[in-house]
Amino acid sequence: MSERPKPRVTVIGLGRMGIPIASAFLDAGYPTTVWNRTAAKADALIAQGASRAATATEAVAASQLVIVPLLDHHTVREALASAAPALRGRTLVNLANSTPDHARELAAWAEEHGADYLDGAMMALPETVATPEGFFLYSGSQPAFTAYRRELEVMAPAHYFGTDPGAAEVHDLALLGAGYAALTGFLHAAALLDSMGTTPEVFAPLAARWLHGMAEFLPELAREAGSATYRDGVSTVDLNRAAVDSLIQLSRASGIATDVHEPLKALLDSRSSDGHGQDSFSSVFELLRSSPGSHEG
Amino acid sequence: MSERPKPRVTVIGLGRMGIPIASAFLDAGYPTTVWNRTAAKADALIAQGASRAATATEAVAASQLVIVPLLDHHTVREALASAAPALRGRTLVNLANSTPDHARELAAWAEEHGADYLDGAMMALPETVATPEGFFLYSGSQPAFTAYRRELEVMAPAHYFGTDPGAAEVHDLALLGAGYAALTGFLHAAALLDSMGTTPEVFAPLAARWLHGMAEFLPELAREAGSATYRDGVSTVDLNRAAVDSLIQLSRASGIATDVHEPLKALLDSRSSDGHGQDSFSSVFELLRSSPGSHEG
Repeated sequence: MSERPKPRVTVIGLGRMGIPIASAFLDAGYPTTVWNRTAAKADALIAQGASRAATATEAVAASQLVIVPLLDHHTVREALASAAPALRGRTLVNLANSTPDHARELAAWAEEHGADYLDGAMMALPETVATPEGFFLYSGSQPAFTAYRRELEVMAPAHYFGTDPGAAEVHDLALLGAGYAALTGFLHAAALLDSMGTTPEVFAPLAARWLHGMAEFLPELAREAGSATYRDGVSTVDLNRAAVDSLIQLSRASGIATDVHEPLKALLDSRSSDGHGQDSFSSVFELLRSSPGSHEG
Repeated sequence: MSERPKPRVTVIGLGRMGIPIASAFLDAGYPTTVWNRTAAKADALIAQGASRAATATEAVAASQLVIVPLLDHHTVREALASAAPALRGRTLVNLANSTPDHARELAAWAEEHGADYLDGAMMALPETVATPEGFFLYSGSQPAFTAYRRELEVMAPAHYFGTDPGAAEVHDLALLGAGYAALTGFLHAAALLDSMGTTPEVFAPLAARWLHGMAEFLPELAREAGSATYRDGVSTVDLNRAAVDSLIQLSRASGIATDVHEPLKALLDSRSSDGHGQDSFSSVFELLRSSPGSHEG
């Protein structure tokens, strides 16, 4: 099997993520063109072997594959506005923080200018670029994803979620939400224990261990939720309802906020009163996905 | 350094956790006495070398160290009621699911009967007993914890949280709460993506990866919360407030429950309007720990 030669890659935007991304392409042996509004940000990359573009248009024109790890939608629009005529025939990979609607808007704009569009969401930190620890989510042009998957995976493992350009951002938001819930739960637990004399620093390693355990548990929850089969009989709605109730009572007695767990309590109460008290915990999924709005009160 | 000989250990209650616990003591070379109300549950352990006690009293009398991995407070009280006179001079380690108040009550009862008391909470599954993956939390008699730490660590890494016999259960509830929050967040995210055509099974490995990443992030949050220093400047209240807001709007537009993230939104809104929008995300800790009740509305 002969490998196609490595295409030239352009990286536009050399911020926290852009620098390690461009560096990763150089490390992987890709001819790499970079551009940044503040040109000095490119100096270390130029020393590493990158080519400096004088303008965004020159940067877009340099490569078939144009990767844009800029900060946000506004910055992307601004940086690319003047370069639009150069986009024809290019593949534009927008890695900015964005909303699903902004991604769709940019996809339409890129298409107008004859470019293939991929929207990407970077689930990674600067230090996890080009390691297996981070991962990037993509949606938009399927041919572009297929053609450039090898290049995309230079940055991080790549996951594709369909042709709706907004889908990557939706998956990003969903993951952020799962993360927020976990971090909020940790901070609540830390507040509760702080009131008992166990500092957040002492608690954190235990909580991390516990959270790693929860992560291992997700595939099982997913199987139950995916098949709507909630009869494991071990971790039931009623059992967990009692624990959540104890937790809320303890929080209240300790002068700690209770509202973090009130929504779960309401979900479990609702399942129980609907006759699903012996279903497994994960069955609250049924309420989450068919909500008329709020389960409270 | 000479090691003291291995003391005889009694395990009362051979359920899901009791069997692997007794088995772990046998594997570690401890003379082990077992008792279970349904005697047949002990058969495999007897074959493995355990001694069978005919009654709970006989079981308590057999060893200085009496470990009780029964299901709940009621079962413990019932199993030990008749054995009370045999408790004098023993160390009782209660591993049942319990509330802080029930643990305190049992500690007082054990003390009345001349026993040292340790309350334990098992953060482990049957299959993680005697592995480094699970861990047990303890509180109550400090001398008992010190004297028997080596034996306790046969079951799982042991963490001690002070002389209040209820403290282990408080820490248990706090960890459960952190776990509940994480799982609820996952189920919410899975519901949102299910509505977009990504099944929970497809989402789970990504979410697990993300959650492992969140777990790694806890020590940093703990440092910020523990020192009340929230000036990292990267992941600010206002930045995350915008993301949580997008998530809630997207959930609403997708017909998915929004209430899971409403409490966090309220916390972030409150921090922001109090002039702390540029503090880091973890600063919601300040609101959680000094709640007059609810941050909603």
